[in-house]
Amino acid sequence: MKVILDAMGGDNAPLEIVKGAIEAKKEYGIDIILVGDEDQIRNILKNENAEPNSFEIVNTTQVIMNNESPTNAIRNKKDSSMVVGLKMLKQDKGDAFISAGSTGALIAGGTLLVGRIKGILRPGLAPIIPSKKGPFMLIDAGANAECKPQYVLQFAMMSEIYMKKVLKKDSPTVGLVNIGEEEEKGTQFTRDCYKLLKESDINFKGNVEARDIPFGAADIIVCDGYAGNIILKTYEGAAEVIFSIMKEKIMSSSRAKLGGLLLKPVFKEFRKEYDYTEYGGAVLLGTKKAVIKAHGNSKAKAIKNAIRQAKLFIESDVVNNISNGIEKRFILENKEDNEPDNVD
Amino acid sequence: MKVILDAMGGDNAPLEIVKGAIEAKKEYGIDIILVGDEDQIRNILKNENAEPNSFEIVNTTQVIMNNESPTNAIRNKKDSSMVVGLKMLKQDKGDAFISAGSTGALIAGGTLLVGRIKGILRPGLAPIIPSKKGPFMLIDAGANAECKPQYVLQFAMMSEIYMKKVLKKDSPTVGLVNIGEEEEKGTQFTRDCYKLLKESDINFKGNVEARDIPFGAADIIVCDGYAGNIILKTYEGAAEVIFSIMKEKIMSSSRAKLGGLLLKPVFKEFRKEYDYTEYGGAVLLGTKKAVIKAHGNSKAKAIKNAIRQAKLFIESDVVNNISNGIEKRFILENKEDNEPDNVD
Repeated sequence: MKVILDAMGGDNAPLEIVKGAIEAKKEYGIDIILVGDEDQIRNILKNENAEPNSFEIVNTTQVIMNNESPTNAIRNKKDSSMVVGLKMLKQDKGDAFISAGSTGALIAGGTLLVGRIKGILRPGLAPIIPSKKGPFMLIDAGANAECKPQYVLQFAMMSEIYMKKVLKKDSPTVGLVNIGEEEEKGTQFTRDCYKLLKESDINFKGNVEARDIPFGAADIIVCDGYAGNIILKTYEGAAEVIFSIMKEKIMSSSRAKLGGLLLKPVFKEFRKEYDYTEYGGAVLLGTKKAVIKAHGNSKAKAIKNAIRQAKLFIESDVVNNISNGIEKRFILENKEDNEPDNVD
Repeated sequence: MKVILDAMGGDNAPLEIVKGAIEAKKEYGIDIILVGDEDQIRNILKNENAEPNSFEIVNTTQVIMNNESPTNAIRNKKDSSMVVGLKMLKQDKGDAFISAGSTGALIAGGTLLVGRIKGILRPGLAPIIPSKKGPFMLIDAGANAECKPQYVLQFAMMSEIYMKKVLKKDSPTVGLVNIGEEEEKGTQFTRDCYKLLKESDINFKGNVEARDIPFGAADIIVCDGYAGNIILKTYEGAAEVIFSIMKEKIMSSSRAKLGGLLLKPVFKEFRKEYDYTEYGGAVLLGTKKAVIKAHGNSKAKAIKNAIRQAKLFIESDVVNNISNGIEKRFILENKEDNEPDNVD
């Protein structure tokens, strides 16, 4: 098993990425290919006292930035760590690709360079998110701003396989994001999704209101990528703002400071239990090989967890399971949706 | 000035509703009409030592429940506190109507019974929400699951008037919810909205990512009702879940309990500063008279604040300002969107 790692992606690259690789190598013993600026990578390996030959290094000269147009970047920056890494994945030089770099570029690159599983209309971005009841999968968190109901049915089906195989969850429940629980609520799109999900053999529990999502409304939450992105970002933003305000307020008086000190273990436990990097990054479900997006601000531990996630993904043979599931469960009516997989 | 209050709407009706009316009467001295079960209302007034003749009471025998189909309920429950109250508003027996009851029914009833301001394509539900930078207005929070870009432009324009006149905010900024900041991001709908907002004389600051909303990304956040509902509910749900987990954890050890005790003033201050009822309820912007939705779990204070909000709304002449603004600023191209205002 070989994991290809974009050493240049993310706010803390390459230092934290390489450190994460070192930790993962130590803990899981899998082969990791580091793609990026070789000099920088070698320097970090040296500073961290890592065996320089324990990693394969592929030198690249470009980095895709967050503010670039994803598709243009993928097409034009041929020697970027992301494009080179994804092409290596496509060419079977590794079994998974992980990047903490531009989400948009990774989605575009994963779809264009690695390609979709036969029968999959669109890959969906699926982060694992903590809730009060445990982790759930949100799909699509932003790969497809506009979706057809058929995509959503496939998102549900792919996530079901992931939850079963990787997170060992029997019969995971699926909830559709809506503005009310009744079947007829929402838009024409949500009503069409509801119908498809209800008619499928998925463990569909119906519409879910956004308010219930942080409490753990379902194991899998499906929606279009616009709504999913909003859920993910509002959830993150709300949590961030609450803790930032709390912190400021705790620092405002000595009584509060003492209280904060006493509550330190509680805050720490909280952060640990609700650490969104605990289960790795967001999977791009539906590509021919594992493509994983680690959070942009990933530190070594988050990268290590994403590598563990890639390992589980590969070991559980998620891609073949999806491929078999699609063949069994779907009659693809919308052939025009099946454009060619690859663009060079 | 007369405010019509649905005494039967919400989780704590009629007790907290009537208590809120008593407090508002004392503080603002405005006339309040209580619509609901007269016996229950009189009992509460008596128990609270309120002058029984200080309120006009209109007896009704029905209540619209949250689980009813909004449009059916409005059409069929002719003697419900909500329908009677909205009809009184229409007939100029009052200047504003407030309810903590079914949001869906209030939106349907406000639109069907009270009617839209001439030129307004669709009223939008607009709660005032706390952020780290102060309150902002979110519109549409769920009145229209599906929207046209023209609606969104009107939402922005109406909210601008509200923020200027009621919240005394000069030149409020408007942000469009999107999955990225660049103009071309998102769906065809968001791109069309962007174009319209950019071309208008609104203080449009461009796309806003959901993550930045709790930090106070703009004074007015516009989107379709499906997205707006998701933002509102995810924000509420995230805050609720964080405080519920914190509470459980604080109770789990004596050290944490002591820390929690010391932080009590901080928590209290937090709750006060970020109290979403501080600015009242959600306004249904675009109806011919003020229709305000108080939160379903409103207590007396929230109702009092909604009454103050109604007072400010009426005093600032928001409806006429919107009406003039629409006339000046819009050439209504989509005449077919202008169905008759009222349905009996």
